[in-house]
Amino acid sequence: MGESVLFEFLHREMVTRVQSQAGDTEHGKCVSTLEGMGFRAGQGLIERFTKEAPAFKDELDVMKFICKEFWTNLFRKQIDNLRTNHQGTYVLQDHRFRLLTPVSNGKQYLEEAPKFLAFTCGLVRGALSNLGIDSTVTAEVSVMPACKFHIVMQKP
Amino acid sequence: MGESVLFEFLHREMVTRVQSQAGDTEHGKCVSTLEGMGFRAGQGLIERFTKEAPAFKDELDVMKFICKEFWTNLFRKQIDNLRTNHQGTYVLQDHRFRLLTPVSNGKQYLEEAPKFLAFTCGLVRGALSNLGIDSTVTAEVSVMPACKFHIVMQKP
Repeated sequence: MGESVLFEFLHREMVTRVQSQAGDTEHGKCVSTLEGMGFRAGQGLIERFTKEAPAFKDELDVMKFICKEFWTNLFRKQIDNLRTNHQGTYVLQDHRFRLLTPVSNGKQYLEEAPKFLAFTCGLVRGALSNLGIDSTVTAEVSVMPACKFHIVMQKP
Repeated sequence: MGESVLFEFLHREMVTRVQSQAGDTEHGKCVSTLEGMGFRAGQGLIERFTKEAPAFKDELDVMKFICKEFWTNLFRKQIDNLRTNHQGTYVLQDHRFRLLTPVSNGKQYLEEAPKFLAFTCGLVRGALSNLGIDSTVTAEVSVMPACKFHIVMQKP
């Protein structure tokens, strides 16, 4: 448990620091900085995780890998629900997202949530990018600590 | 393994970012920023780890806890060697420190090492601080990825 707690504490420190540097008004800058850090980490992580994985059949196969192996490796649980329109849009639902639990006590934190999801959006985008898929990844929170990640793949 | 890798990647991203912001000349500023982030994380972590731990008899007892439980929880191994002069100075040796392994290929990285140890120095100082011990914590690398942490406790 220690290692994951260590990651959570470091993640929180990083969010706090990036936020304080961006200033209160520059919410977008803060989110994009964190997303960029996640992107580079995601690129490195997927390389390690796919070393012994079989080649992927198609896009959906990649997404299943992200929802199962990738998520479990990083967050100790699978994505709870995966939906797709079969046209390059995927919605990944996590009913209890680990990085939100420290800020999930009370509605007043709802507006803080995007900052705690930006790094993870980047992780997913970086992982997909390394597998040859360009995408945009955004996150949505309605009731903490549940959240949805929306992935829209770019047509080549 | 995924969670620890996630921490390593995030840690590396954070070092890179703090460094690029501090500028090449401001090595000391970079180290002190990272140390401060570690300090706050260490304070939080030790609270969780000592919830069910028995009270400590003395300073040495605290240091043994740091070398065993604290280190194992965070880095999957104990400190390899603990020395003390019994006057408030402790030297903790880790023969294979996890956060150095990504940068341990080659001598040219030796000067980079302090940046990769600063967060951990802060972790230890924060943990001790929460246990009522003020200290200064510095790190020393001779042959990577081995390193020593020097802890000097302040007399009350």
